[in-house]
Amino acid sequence: MNSVARVTIWNEFIHEKINPEVSAIYPHGIHQCIAEFLGRSDEIETRTATLEEPDHGLSDEVLQSTDVLLWWGHKAHDKVSDEIVKKVHKRVLEGMGFIGLHSAHYSKIFRSLLGTECSLKWRDDGEKERLWVVEPSHPIAEGLGEYFELPQVEMYGERFDIPTPDKLVFLSWFEGGEVFRSGCCWEKGHGKIFYFRPGHETFPIYHDPNVQKVLLNAVRWAAPKFWGKHECPRRDPLETIG
Amino acid sequence: MNSVARVTIWNEFIHEKINPEVSAIYPHGIHQCIAEFLGRSDEIETRTATLEEPDHGLSDEVLQSTDVLLWWGHKAHDKVSDEIVKKVHKRVLEGMGFIGLHSAHYSKIFRSLLGTECSLKWRDDGEKERLWVVEPSHPIAEGLGEYFELPQVEMYGERFDIPTPDKLVFLSWFEGGEVFRSGCCWEKGHGKIFYFRPGHETFPIYHDPNVQKVLLNAVRWAAPKFWGKHECPRRDPLETIG
Amino acid sequence: MNSVARVTIWNEFIHEKINPEVSAIYPHGIHQCIAEFLGRSDEIETRTATLEEPDHGLSDEVLQSTDVLLWWGHKAHDKVSDEIVKKVHKRVLEGMGFIGLHSAHYSKIFRSLLGTECSLKWRDDGEKERLWVVEPSHPIAEGLGEYFELPQVEMYGERFDIPTPDKLVFLSWFEGGEVFRSGCCWEKGHGKIFYFRPGHETFPIYHDPNVQKVLLNAVRWAAPKFWGKHECPRRDPLETIG
Amino acid sequence: MNSVARVTIWNEFIHEKINPEVSAIYPHGIHQCIAEFLGRSDEIETRTATLEEPDHGLSDEVLQSTDVLLWWGHKAHDKVSDEIVKKVHKRVLEGMGFIGLHSAHYSKIFRSLLGTECSLKWRDDGEKERLWVVEPSHPIAEGLGEYFELPQVEMYGERFDIPTPDKLVFLSWFEGGEVFRSGCCWEKGHGKIFYFRPGHETFPIYHDPNVQKVLLNAVRWAAPKFWGKHECPRRDPLETIG
Repeated sequence: MNSVARVTIWNEFIHEKINPEVSAIYPHGIHQCIAEFLGRSDEIETRTATLEEPDHGLSDEVLQSTDVLLWWGHKAHDKVSDEIVKKVHKRVLEGMGFIGLHSAHYSKIFRSLLGTECSLKWRDDGEKERLWVVEPSHPIAEGLGEYFELPQVEMYGERFDIPTPDKLVFLSWFEGGEVFRSGCCWEKGHGKIFYFRPGHETFPIYHDPNVQKVLLNAVRWAAPKFWGKHECPRRDPLETIG
Repeated sequence: MNSVARVTIWNEFIHEKINPEVSAIYPHGIHQCIAEFLGRSDEIETRTATLEEPDHGLSDEVLQSTDVLLWWGHKAHDKVSDEIVKKVHKRVLEGMGFIGLHSAHYSKIFRSLLGTECSLKWRDDGEKERLWVVEPSHPIAEGLGEYFELPQVEMYGERFDIPTPDKLVFLSWFEGGEVFRSGCCWEKGHGKIFYFRPGHETFPIYHDPNVQKVLLNAVRWAAPKFWGKHECPRRDPLETIG
Repeated sequence: MNSVARVTIWNEFIHEKINPEVSAIYPHGIHQCIAEFLGRSDEIETRTATLEEPDHGLSDEVLQSTDVLLWWGHKAHDKVSDEIVKKVHKRVLEGMGFIGLHSAHYSKIFRSLLGTECSLKWRDDGEKERLWVVEPSHPIAEGLGEYFELPQVEMYGERFDIPTPDKLVFLSWFEGGEVFRSGCCWEKGHGKIFYFRPGHETFPIYHDPNVQKVLLNAVRWAAPKFWGKHECPRRDPLETIG
Repeated sequence: MNSVARVTIWNEFIHEKINPEVSAIYPHGIHQCIAEFLGRSDEIETRTATLEEPDHGLSDEVLQSTDVLLWWGHKAHDKVSDEIVKKVHKRVLEGMGFIGLHSAHYSKIFRSLLGTECSLKWRDDGEKERLWVVEPSHPIAEGLGEYFELPQVEMYGERFDIPTPDKLVFLSWFEGGEVFRSGCCWEKGHGKIFYFRPGHETFPIYHDPNVQKVLLNAVRWAAPKFWGKHECPRRDPLETIG
């Protein structure tokens, strides 16, 4: 990592433009809200990108200068070009951190990174969620208590079709009776991946101080200290053969 | 699993047709050689499929009636259609076992399942390989001793760009000085995946009794006992909300 | 595994003798109840052992002829001799399956196998538990639906101090607001370990058909196909040195 | 972690006093050699402890003020008191980093932390070892190339009886034909554990610059950012029951 982590927040940025309920909560878009609270840290330099920009705002230049990419998408997963998905995927394998937010579980890029369907159960009834900290010593849980609550959320329930996480940081309890692996870490190539469940567009999730703390911690955790290309070279023997 | 595992062996089937050295070892193709020795088990029913067949021999009907798919490819990874790769991937997540053979490390389907580059170092100098059994109690190691040797192989060396295997069964020592994670297990969705390193076209690897034993064990291990579709349904609450 | 799995059910067998509420549910002890329902399967041969027997009923002969050991303890963990714990531990590493039941999370043998404190939160208020199946294709989940419920249980809540399970099969939701990793698998040496949370003495948990199904599945899963001693031998080189 | 990691290097300190060959290489003991090169970093404050000191030099006060403990033992594993092993183990679960060195694979504390026999094959013929970096982006591999070599070592060969490492950083190739998982990471409780294979007493392993780099990296990686006690409290419900 550079002394400053260069963070790009990607948002499909559709709900905010068509649903007044959403724009009331995120007047400049979810991406700007996240950029604003992450940017308060002097370790972090933020930038945003959205679906409708050329290359969805993810040109080679942007990807080459991004340490951690956060991804929010929901309505328009299929509008994201396969070519850009491939480039983002490649960059993660080279070292770029990736943080999948809420409905990004079903984005092309998240499913491509994990290699699974990433399906789940859901319900948008505005119930209570309590996130239990399973690994208090994990960097992403730094500064949190034993649990924190969100008063009104969309529910995501198990079975969540993911590969067994390398580390499970949060487990959610839902008022309506479900549970969920809400904070999951994986490593792929040289890149770190974190999925964080909370984040719906019609509830002010990204205004919650604990959610903000988790995402700040996650950016620090996912920021790479090593970048590497992947090649498949022929090599001469190091010892005599035969 | 049905009492009999329905196994499909896929082979790009190119080397055997253009290189007499290869056809001398595998006169009917690598796929037929593997089908022949697996088929000796009365628990296994074999079928083959190759690149040049319609749908590469992997029609919906074939995939729907395959318990375990073995994959050999090398020269023509990019000739495999993306649509078929997606279908195979989906079927693995529903439960179908997948066994990647040797140079299949770089096939579209294997990389798509693992989500990594799967790059490695290589050398085709015909050196000795010794495969050490790291997990003697794993079903895939059944009936093997502490190690077995292959007198002449293509070398694959670390770093192998894969996600940490759920279980590492074999580790290879090479005469020329490298090491390799040669037998690796993962689970994705409801399907089991095994990668087995040995298997070059110009050495009679698939005629080796230990290699044959490993592949027979691997088919038994990967054969599904459970099939499931992946869906993302809305669900009513199980408890009262509010 | 022999065609028949030889199962020993160990119980400290104290509550049943001093608490009429418990003996009303388990008149012959928890161990006999478990032996009875497991023994209905013609694949399983049961035997029981209790704290007060010589060697706690776990003589060398018993351990040498046990494929899977189930362990229930609560009040008297410290009464179990360190010598027997060592013998059981050694036998698990040689291949014997081990199933820790409910309050066995705090037994010497379970903590010794996992190497962690295995601490948790608890509450004995008779609330509802719903166990979600996280891995429907795991053998231990065979025949279960998406979840099952227990109307009245002692609650165990996270953080459960365990090493990350190799496979997490069940996640519990509790009426009182907690969650728990209720079905966890590990492998140590050549032995398989399963922890199953439900099982309190004052609720008829082991009379529940789903609980019985889980334990039957777990015995099948944990039954060894391979036994091996652990030695640390000097070995001559396989290649010329120098 | 404090800005400075407080490191204690434990050594049984026997070979150096009875074998001139060893004292020629480590005139003040292996512990002093390690303390010396780690202490060159201004992030690290070193201290040593040996078997013959009261409490083996590991009083409660020392353990309470140690961030990372390195352990070297070989001839006298059984001379280490069970009580001290329990205290060290408990402290690791609370957050203290632990680095097992070479023959410490068979120490009471290492086996107790991992819960396995930790047996392996060995040979003391002074052969060449090549350590391949499997995870170049892991902090413990920082600053290393694709591999490094040690000209003369004691060989350790698979099967190494350990639980599957959370992360495998180094794989060794030996001249005599074996392989070994030489750099392995685990987490237990709140503590991080690293095992590093090289380190024999009659070869100047701890004078090797790459070995020194690995141990410095490992100390940084294992130094805790979080300390926590483990308790098993009753908790009132957070939601209404019944």
